[in-house]
Amino acid sequence: MLASSPLRSCRVGLPRSNNLVIPKPSPSSIAHSTQPAATPSSLDNRRQLATQAQTLGSKPSSKGPTAVVLLNLGGPKTLDDVGDFLSRLFHDRELIQLPFQSRLAPLIAKRRTPKIQAQYDKIGGGSPILRWTQTQGKAMTELLDELHPETAPHKAYTAFRYARPLTEETFDEMAEDGVTRAVGFTQYPQYSCSTTGSSLNELYREIQRRKDRGAPEANIQWSVIDRWPTYPLLIESFAKRIEAVLETYPEDKRDKVPIMFSAHSLPMQVVSGRGDPYPGEVAATVSKVMDRLGWRNPYRLTWQSQVGPSAWLGPQTSDTVKGWAKQGHKDAVVVPIAFTSDHIETLYELDIELQEEAEELGMTLKRAESLNDDPTFIRAMAEITASHLSAIHGTGFKGSFEDAPGKSVWNQGLTSNQMQLRCPGCINPVCGESKSFFAGKTSS
Amino acid sequence: MLASSPLRSCRVGLPRSNNLVIPKPSPSSIAHSTQPAATPSSLDNRRQLATQAQTLGSKPSSKGPTAVVLLNLGGPKTLDDVGDFLSRLFHDRELIQLPFQSRLAPLIAKRRTPKIQAQYDKIGGGSPILRWTQTQGKAMTELLDELHPETAPHKAYTAFRYARPLTEETFDEMAEDGVTRAVGFTQYPQYSCSTTGSSLNELYREIQRRKDRGAPEANIQWSVIDRWPTYPLLIESFAKRIEAVLETYPEDKRDKVPIMFSAHSLPMQVVSGRGDPYPGEVAATVSKVMDRLGWRNPYRLTWQSQVGPSAWLGPQTSDTVKGWAKQGHKDAVVVPIAFTSDHIETLYELDIELQEEAEELGMTLKRAESLNDDPTFIRAMAEITASHLSAIHGTGFKGSFEDAPGKSVWNQGLTSNQMQLRCPGCINPVCGESKSFFAGKTSS
Repeated sequence: MLASSPLRSCRVGLPRSNNLVIPKPSPSSIAHSTQPAATPSSLDNRRQLATQAQTLGSKPSSKGPTAVVLLNLGGPKTLDDVGDFLSRLFHDRELIQLPFQSRLAPLIAKRRTPKIQAQYDKIGGGSPILRWTQTQGKAMTELLDELHPETAPHKAYTAFRYARPLTEETFDEMAEDGVTRAVGFTQYPQYSCSTTGSSLNELYREIQRRKDRGAPEANIQWSVIDRWPTYPLLIESFAKRIEAVLETYPEDKRDKVPIMFSAHSLPMQVVSGRGDPYPGEVAATVSKVMDRLGWRNPYRLTWQSQVGPSAWLGPQTSDTVKGWAKQGHKDAVVVPIAFTSDHIETLYELDIELQEEAEELGMTLKRAESLNDDPTFIRAMAEITASHLSAIHGTGFKGSFEDAPGKSVWNQGLTSNQMQLRCPGCINPVCGESKSFFAGKTSS
Repeated sequence: MLASSPLRSCRVGLPRSNNLVIPKPSPSSIAHSTQPAATPSSLDNRRQLATQAQTLGSKPSSKGPTAVVLLNLGGPKTLDDVGDFLSRLFHDRELIQLPFQSRLAPLIAKRRTPKIQAQYDKIGGGSPILRWTQTQGKAMTELLDELHPETAPHKAYTAFRYARPLTEETFDEMAEDGVTRAVGFTQYPQYSCSTTGSSLNELYREIQRRKDRGAPEANIQWSVIDRWPTYPLLIESFAKRIEAVLETYPEDKRDKVPIMFSAHSLPMQVVSGRGDPYPGEVAATVSKVMDRLGWRNPYRLTWQSQVGPSAWLGPQTSDTVKGWAKQGHKDAVVVPIAFTSDHIETLYELDIELQEEAEELGMTLKRAESLNDDPTFIRAMAEITASHLSAIHGTGFKGSFEDAPGKSVWNQGLTSNQMQLRCPGCINPVCGESKSFFAGKTSS
């Protein structure tokens, strides 16, 4: 459990830059890469990256693996872990802001623990998210070694925000392995400051803490895959999961049953007040999945997991079921569209809670399986990492469904261009510092 | 001005069906069309359409043109028209629901008239929307005659919701022209029940009114293009407008200046309460435009034109400018992403009001020109109509940027599949009736 609010930890010891150390390709292979004709602006970017790569000449090459750090919120492994998990969650000022937070957070967590323990009890006594993340990480790095040998060997690490392994534990492991180059890979395809933003800020703070105590792993060279809402193989993976469910309906229903894409909601204070990009990125995923499905079925994007009395983005998933039941619908397909593996929101909220509500209303819901260890999804993870590394190293990797390398939001350099734009209502200075740091800019 | 609430007008005299009369192609050309291999479900759809086409054999072919009816809210042509425009707007229960609406609407309209007149005065004394719509309609139907001769000649009509020509006037014109086949083509690329839904419901009510008095034009055969948020040529047109603005920046700024995509907002009661699909469809447009631009610049989707004390979807466009100014941004590109021609929201709200706010904050905004008479946009309008007609008539038309005919949301038959799914929180019975009618189903 974090001892105090993460926001307080880190206002000193900022780095001057995060120049990239490139372990494998020679400067000449970068100068003569197979990238398509570059625009003046992307040329600037390439020159900057090439300069970074050339500085490598004078440095010893790394013996550690290229780390791929899978960032996620995590979940309690056992019922005994629920209290600590909730306490960390309520301490996170990037997720939720409470008065007297460092004192209130443990109290709220304690009060909620029995209820949440009961929910985890119903799904087998704990969250499967660590198991899934480790399975995904292992499979994807094996494939990544083949796809992008220039940066091999790759090793997957897990860094959870509210459960073990926490960022600091992951850092210890990377230090032991002699890692000097790491990719922070958010496991939320759609960016929110409450999720990916919080993970990246925590990562940034941990780097500063290690820098302050002179630890060598503070010099690990980072880049981040900060969003990938429309990555073609991700879309393919979702679409296949949905098609598998649609196949279970008789022909006359198959293209008429409505699809409910359900994503975790956010408070309106975050959506309208701060201007978080998440709702739009989730909608982008949905639109691309519907493109891929040929717009066969009618659909809605709905929002789940609202808590507390304040206004959250809707329509709520459960209200949608109620509304459709009233309108005479008997069937719907439910698709978790903002999570890539099972956890409480799918296994309890959708599979138990929502199913019970639907049954009472005379509706039959079928849920598209989470991506979990779907081979298409594992390939998505590996290809996007290869694509990201390729954009930095100029190795010309092209994913299965990509027309050309290096022209989308996930392969623009050390971060996406989009990540560098803060939310219009952002008043968290760590966001600005963290974004500059990961972009390799001198922090202010 | 409508004498009373539109919702009251039409609960009787519902049609049994809206079977399509196809003026040109023979049943054999439909049976042997060049459409790609069909799935069982789209086969069903094709069979249904072919059956509708075959019924043509026994009917006289039409002498009137194929009507393409451009649906939009409209705007007051002169300052004297502002009062009537506002009164119609506040009467529309599909846009806004007030207590004692038929008595309150004229009062609110009267109170607001001077303020809105002053705004129109600043943009030249009236809305240019009729002029733009007529220019677009004429140019697009000329091209459409070439692209889809099977349904030529085509003639463009305008039907505004709150300004002249109103739906009833348009109907009179179509009756005079001997129209028997019409496409209702929403000029809002992204569907909202408050905009396209309101226009289609009004069209449906007008059809019923004419049916009640036995007018022959009540038998016009309709299909609708109800949404086209990601139509490839629409995206191309937006992207070119943005590129033209970006070109005006020096090279070192060009790919760094943030883009603000601004769309008309909606009350949260409509977004979260009713579950309107509009925000997601606007986000889909934005994502595709950014795809086309290679995600060069950072961007945000923001929402404008909020009125009244209730909560609306944000972040608000003007708050975004304030936030960015605070964060030190000096420049931004503003892109109206949910309107296709200029009117008060672009010419006054963005070009005058927002510009003044930005200047006070030391920011320089440049606005992407509205699509207006952009030849790429005119082609978009013509191709999407050809694509829609082709899907119904099986003529195999393929748009400039389409891989294959007949597989997206705008060319699925008489309406999109998506239009047949009502909002989960919808309690307006006319929505259900109107959707069934335009889909050619027997209304209940």
